[in-house]
Order: sequence, then C-alpha cells, then structure tokens
Amino acid sequence: MNSSMIRYILGNVIKLEGLFLLLPCAISLIYQEKEGGVYLVLALACVAIGTLLTYKKPENTVFYLKEGCIATSLSWMVLSLFGCIPFMVTGEIPNFTDAMFETMSGFTTTGASILSDIEALSHTSLFWRSFTHWIGGMGVLIFLLAVIPMGGGSHMNLMRAESAGPSVGKLVPKMRYTARILYAIYLGLTIVQFVVLLVAQMPWFDALCISIGTAGTGGFGVLNSSMASYSVVAQWIVTIFMILFSINFNVYYLIIFGEIKKVLRMEELRAFLLIILVATAVIAIDIFSTCANAFDAITKSVFHVASIISSSGFATTDFDQWPTLSKTVLVILMFIGACAGSTGGGMKVSRFVLQAKAIKNELHSYLHPKSVRQITMDGKDVEPGVIRSVSMYMITFFALFVLSVLLVSHDSKDVTTTFTSVVTTLNNIGPGLADVGPTQNFGHFSDLSKWVFIFDMLAGRLELFPLLILFYPSIWKDMLSHKLRKRKTNKV
Amino acid sequence: MNSSMIRYILGNVIKLEGLFLLLPCAISLIYQEKEGGVYLVLALACVAIGTLLTYKKPENTVFYLKEGCIATSLSWMVLSLFGCIPFMVTGEIPNFTDAMFETMSGFTTTGASILSDIEALSHTSLFWRSFTHWIGGMGVLIFLLAVIPMGGGSHMNLMRAESAGPSVGKLVPKMRYTARILYAIYLGLTIVQFVVLLVAQMPWFDALCISIGTAGTGGFGVLNSSMASYSVVAQWIVTIFMILFSINFNVYYLIIFGEIKKVLRMEELRAFLLIILVATAVIAIDIFSTCANAFDAITKSVFHVASIISSSGFATTDFDQWPTLSKTVLVILMFIGACAGSTGGGMKVSRFVLQAKAIKNELHSYLHPKSVRQITMDGKDVEPGVIRSVSMYMITFFALFVLSVLLVSHDSKDVTTTFTSVVTTLNNIGPGLADVGPTQNFGHFSDLSKWVFIFDMLAGRLELFPLLILFYPSIWKDMLSHKLRKRKTNKV
Repeated sequence: MNSSMIRYILGNVIKLEGLFLLLPCAISLIYQEKEGGVYLVLALACVAIGTLLTYKKPENTVFYLKEGCIATSLSWMVLSLFGCIPFMVTGEIPNFTDAMFETMSGFTTTGASILSDIEALSHTSLFWRSFTHWIGGMGVLIFLLAVIPMGGGSHMNLMRAESAGPSVGKLVPKMRYTARILYAIYLGLTIVQFVVLLVAQMPWFDALCISIGTAGTGGFGVLNSSMASYSVVAQWIVTIFMILFSINFNVYYLIIFGEIKKVLRMEELRAFLLIILVATAVIAIDIFSTCANAFDAITKSVFHVASIISSSGFATTDFDQWPTLSKTVLVILMFIGACAGSTGGGMKVSRFVLQAKAIKNELHSYLHPKSVRQITMDGKDVEPGVIRSVSMYMITFFALFVLSVLLVSHDSKDVTTTFTSVVTTLNNIGPGLADVGPTQNFGHFSDLSKWVFIFDMLAGRLELFPLLILFYPSIWKDMLSHKLRKRKTNKV
Repeated sequence: MNSSMIRYILGNVIKLEGLFLLLPCAISLIYQEKEGGVYLVLALACVAIGTLLTYKKPENTVFYLKEGCIATSLSWMVLSLFGCIPFMVTGEIPNFTDAMFETMSGFTTTGASILSDIEALSHTSLFWRSFTHWIGGMGVLIFLLAVIPMGGGSHMNLMRAESAGPSVGKLVPKMRYTARILYAIYLGLTIVQFVVLLVAQMPWFDALCISIGTAGTGGFGVLNSSMASYSVVAQWIVTIFMILFSINFNVYYLIIFGEIKKVLRMEELRAFLLIILVATAVIAIDIFSTCANAFDAITKSVFHVASIISSSGFATTDFDQWPTLSKTVLVILMFIGACAGSTGGGMKVSRFVLQAKAIKNELHSYLHPKSVRQITMDGKDVEPGVIRSVSMYMITFFALFVLSVLLVSHDSKDVTTTFTSVVTTLNNIGPGLADVGPTQNFGHFSDLSKWVFIFDMLAGRLELFPLLILFYPSIWKDMLSHKLRKRKTNKV
C-alpha cells in the first residue's frame, strides 16, 4: 500500500480547496459581506495544511487501483469536511450534520438541501454552495491529474476511481493531457452558458451561480422558488445546457476535431436523446390539461426531464402535484441518469444499453444454448468482464438502495417520501416526491437518516466500489501492517 | 421446432385439468350446489379436447430447452383460460378480464383477488379457487413428467422451464422418479397440515382450502377476513406450514434418507431462516406498542413474515396500518421470496446468496485485479454461467418491474399503490400496501392494468425467460417455417 502517495494526494486536494475558497472571498468583496473573512482564514489554513502534507514528496509515485479508490474516497470526505466549515462558523448552518449534508450534496452535485430559506444566506455562501457543484462535477482528482506527476498507469487508476460510467476512455495517449482537455471543455461551456444567460437578462450573480450549478449538474439555485421566477427564455437556456453537460465530454472533443460521424454513431448518445424525447412527450401529454397551452406543457415537461435525467434537480414547477404517470417517469429517469463521462449522476445510460444487449443475449441462449454471441458497443467488442462489472454495479446499487430505505424508514415518513429520498440522494438528483418534493427540503429527517443520505450521495457520485472497498477488512489490515513494517524497517 | 410434441403436451395439460375439475364437482355434491353442473360439463369437455389433441402420438419425443419454454408458457395460459370458464358461466365473476385475473392469480399462487366479497362465492367455486393454488404450486408440467415418456434430456428441459430457482437438481438419476418423489412429499405435507388443522378444530372445508392454499403458497382464503378470525393456534399452524412449503423440497428428500448433515450445510436454507428470524424480531419490536403483549406482537410478526416471504399472502391483521419500517421490511421480503425448489415465489433466497458472493468477489477484484476467485455454494463450485444468468435474471426482473409500474401508473393511483401492486403480482405474493393492502382488492384497476398484472403473475411464476422468449421474433419465424416446410414435404 503506497500510503505516502495517498497522503500526498490528500495534501494536494486540501491545498486546491484552499485556492477554490478564495473565490467566495472575491464575491464577499463585491457585496461587502463580513462572511468573506471566514472564507479567507479557512483558505489560508487549507493552503498551510496542504503544503505541510505535500512538503515531502513520495519516493514511489506508482500506485494501483486499490490506492486510487482509497485516495479518491478519502479526498472527497476531506473536501466536504473542510468545505462545510464556513457554513458552521458563519452560523448560517450551525449544525454539523446539516452543514455536512449541504456540502456533500454540493460536491456530489446532488443539490438536495436541508435549508427551508435559501435566500437568507449571504451571497458569499450562496456562491460557495453553488461552486461546490462545479468543483465536484468534473471531479477534483481529475484536476490534480493535470498537474501532479505520477508513474506508470497510476493516472488511469485514479481516473477510473473517480469518473463516471462503466469504462474509462482516454482521449489522447497521455492521461494528463486528457484531463486538461476535459477541464478546458468544462470551463468553456460554463462561460458560454454564463454569457448566454446574461444576454437573456438574468442578473449576473444568478447567472453565475446557475451556470456553475448547471455545469456540475448540481441543482442548487439562489432563490427559494428554484427556477420558477426566471423568464421562459432563461428556462430553455438552462434546459439546453443541462442536456449538454450530461453528454459524454468525448463528444465535444470529437466535434472539435471534426469527427461528427463518430459522434452520430455513439449508441449511448442516441439512447440518451431518445429517452429524453419519449419522456418529454409522455409527460407533456399527461400534464397538458393542467397547463396554459401546448408550448407551456412542453416547456415544463422538457425542463424537468432534462433536470432529472441530467441529475441537476432544478425545478420550475412543483412536479409532485403532477399525475402519477408523470411522477413515475421522473423516478425512472432518476435511476437512468446521464451519459458516462459527463458531469451527471444516476446509473448512466450506457450501463442500461449494455444490459439491454446482455438480456437479449440471455434470451438468445435459451434458443441456442451452445452458441455464444459477442456484445458490441459503438462497433467495438465489449469484454465479458465489463458486462459482469455492470451487472454487479447494478445489483450492488439496488442492495445499497434497499439497505438505505430500511434505515431511513425508521423515521416513519410515508412510503413515497422514504423511497424517493433515497432514490434522489443515491442518484445525486436533488428533489424527490411527497415530503422531499421540489418545494420541500431534507431538514425534517433525523440525524441517522441524514448520515445515510450523506453516505449515499458519496457512494452514488463515486459509483459505489471506490467507497465500498473501505469496508473490506483486508484494506485496513494492509494499511496497518504496511505502517508497522515501515516502522520496523526504520528502526533497523 | 418439435411442434407436435408441444401439441401433445398441451393436450395432456387440458386432459389433466379436466380430471382436476372433477374435484369441485365432488364438493358441490356435498353442499348440493348447482354450480357443480358447470364444472362437470367443463371437465368432460376438457377431457374430450385433451384426448383429441393427444390422440396422435408424436414420432419424435426429443425436444430442447426452447420447446420446453414454449410448451410451459402455453400450458399455463391454456390452464388459466379453461380454468376461468366456471367463474364466468356460474356468473360469480362474469367479466372475462376479472375471471382471468382471479384464475391466473390462483395458478401462479399469487392470491391477489378482484373480489370484494369472497364469502358470496359457492363452496364449489371457493374450493376450485384454492385448488388452483395447489395445482400451480408444484407445477402442472412436473406432474406430467411423472407420466409422459420423453426422449433424451427432454424431461430436464421441461423441468428447467417450470421450476423455481437458479439451477435445477435431480434427486435421483431418472427425472420422472424425481417428479414422483416431489409430488409425494407435496401431497403428504398437505395432508398432514389438513389433519393438524382439523385437530385444532378448524371447520373441515376451511381446513381443506387453507391447507391446499398454504401448500401452493397461494393465499386465497374462504373468509373476507382472511385468517384473522381463526384461533391463535390455527394461525401458528399455518405459519409453520407456510415456512415448510417455502423450503427447498430436496430438504425433505434428504431428511427421509437420513442425510441431516447435508441439510444443515445448505446455505440457502440457513440464509432463509436467518432472514425470517431477523425480520420477525424487527417487526415485533416495531409494532409492539400497538399489540396486546409481546406474544401477540410475535404471533402477528412471524405470521406475516412467513406469509410474505413464502409468497402466500394470508393476513391476520391489516399490516398496511403498521409503521413505515415494518412495511418496508415486508416489501423487501416480497422481493426476496422463498427458497429455490419450493412452491414459493419471489426472486428466491439462493439468487441473493449467490449475488452477495459475487459482489464480494467484485470488491476483491478491485483489491487484486489479477486474481480470480471461485464462487462456491454448499461446498460445490458454481459455474460462471450460473452467476451471469442470476445477474441477468435480476436485471430483467427490474426492467419488467419498471415497465409494469409505468403502464399501471396510467391509472393514477397513488405512488405506493402503483408500486406495490406490481411488486406483489410480479413476486406472486398477493396483498401490497395502500389501495392493494390486505383489506383491499384489485377490482378497482383498469382492464389494462389487470392484464399487466396477469402477465406479471405468469412471468413471475415462470421466472421470466420461458415467457419472454415468446417475444423473440425468430421463435415465430421458426415455428411458421417449420409448418410450411412440413406442408411442402407432405405435398411432395
């Protein structure tokens, strides 16, 4: 176990968070809010701690998937632990569990909140809250990949632990360049959305927070009414960008290099757009009688379909009041989620595409027990190991889902609330139905339930296994014995 | 495609149903009810049709898994089609959809009803309704296996399509003897329960119907109050037999031959009993404050745990009024279901045991990417193909579940009703929560939803694939081209 490399990465994460914390300080200067002081002190403290931890460079920079997973899980915990401090110190969210919930919800781009009055927050904290979405959306370790030197396939092992989807593709041979390209696309798209929203006459602060919230497919807004009070034009702009940010970022890379044909052949993208189209049509027809006209029905329908499937969770209306069919469609979209390699959550469209093919194969094997058919995706053969991993992922997902529902049901909320509160946190969406509907919040749950949600949000964002292996006893034995061995070696 | 063998099997099934229909005739003689005439005419008609279809014996008696699946699916449809006729002709359930729902619910041992007043039925029909559970519990084709001669591994292909669980074990080298042993155990246990209930002073007709309903883990009762008005002793007897009938029948075979050690080592059995123990404890504590005393809480808790996990669905109290935690536990038990090789429904404990091991292996592969560990069950190696099939089964199950919820949600019932109505029919349980709770029925759904439930009950009972391959286009092409080829050959 390469513990010093894990220590080095954690140190870098804290240092990086210190730099990120300077941005809310800038906002506090503009609005002349005293909360900025808290952020500044914390920023300096983070840089100091990070520098201390990274002072001694590890001799051995190679590490394996195991260490990649541990480093990733611990990084995200540390990120949220430091990130929730300002909320507590400023007194805006004094309770530790609540502050941790809000921050984890931010970094994991869930967007579920324990706050009943968002508008009571300072601009500084509102910005930081939305900015956690942007940091968590693309992933903080992927950022580090671009700057820290690592040996051998170590980049890949870190990337595999943090990024979304059943398999990881490199854009260019060198992983660190891939990471830089991804961040450039991410930043570029965010700026475009910000500018377009400004043109649509949204106030600059709202446009800024909503752009970074959309980019991370998070869902924290700056108004209690979420997106309801903005113009229809602004709602359509956000709809389009929610979809853009939940598409595999490889698409943009391919478009930049003119490989449109490859883009059109991507099966996941086609399935994703088809699902959006069908879901929008079904809901629009279902809610038509409650809307002003057809355009209104489509506007509301496509906004929420995009908001849920992208795992953003913005709302322009209280969809908990919709007919059961529409609500069911939304709950299903929560599970499906965005495309792999995007900033979106959920179980990812590609996993469902792969499983649909595997089911077809299984049926085929009933007809022709001896013939084995190869599963392909985008014209390439898919290894059996990938299919197995996807199946395991889905079943583990449901196991964790059931266990969480069981723990949360102890709160004696109604069945719909209990069920959808877990769906929406595990899939990093934000709102659910009934008492966790878009006009409600998570403040009324017990501390136990809130910690279940905190765990689920992180498990959902890291796609289960990187977090779950921390519960594998041999990991800790390994780490402990490594330290003991090291100490012995030093003594000798 | 061996169509003539499929025809031959269907003919035998209809003939057999004709014989079974003579039993309600006997009941009508005892109670001097005119409904018996309808059953008698139908019985004779079935025997006549069956004899016609089986008159010409097929030359080739060998058939493959594909034909086994098709024969099984069609048999169960034919069984229900003929079985629902008496309900319609006697006018007790005049509507075709409703009669089909009730009969399919009977044969698949679901026990969900569209009737609001069960006691209005004649004894003859009440008995037939419960008797469908007994027929469907062990399976009608397994009965035929014991009597029809078949070539090669054909017995196995029929058995694999109808029986429950991830893999099929033979008790003795000859499949037809295995089938006979299973039916002997089944009949024996049913008689024991009947006698014990008589000793506990239950009226003989009630004891008969409840014994055959328990044996098939069905859940149809003869009173509107289900099991609530019987004595506590009777409730405990039914509890014990519900558990006995949801255990793998191999256990009884092994016990008869004194191989107790093998029984104690069966991992599925141990997991099954552990789940019952934990679920009973959790619910007993959760409902304690609403019960008369600790014994009452345990009586109610264990009865419903056994009733739901065995997929029977009897009720002694309205568990829809229980706290959310207890209801959640029951819904989870619905999915888990009974042991493989029993008469119970659900997804089967062994599938979950296998998947838990596979998940552990997957986590292990994150730690040691290059080492492959063999999964074992009851000390024997499990083939990778079995694990893959189990994963595929589970994912297909959830896919069908989601699709069904979507269709049923069109009825605009509340989310809990919509959700649990599908859970309870797909898993062959009976009652759900809210508007399909134990004091409610399925009569209020639209015809579309009822047909979704009818399909789901059959899909659940046949464990998906035997039914789903009927939707595989090549099956029909194959059958059609075979007939055309045959006709051509005849012309030549």
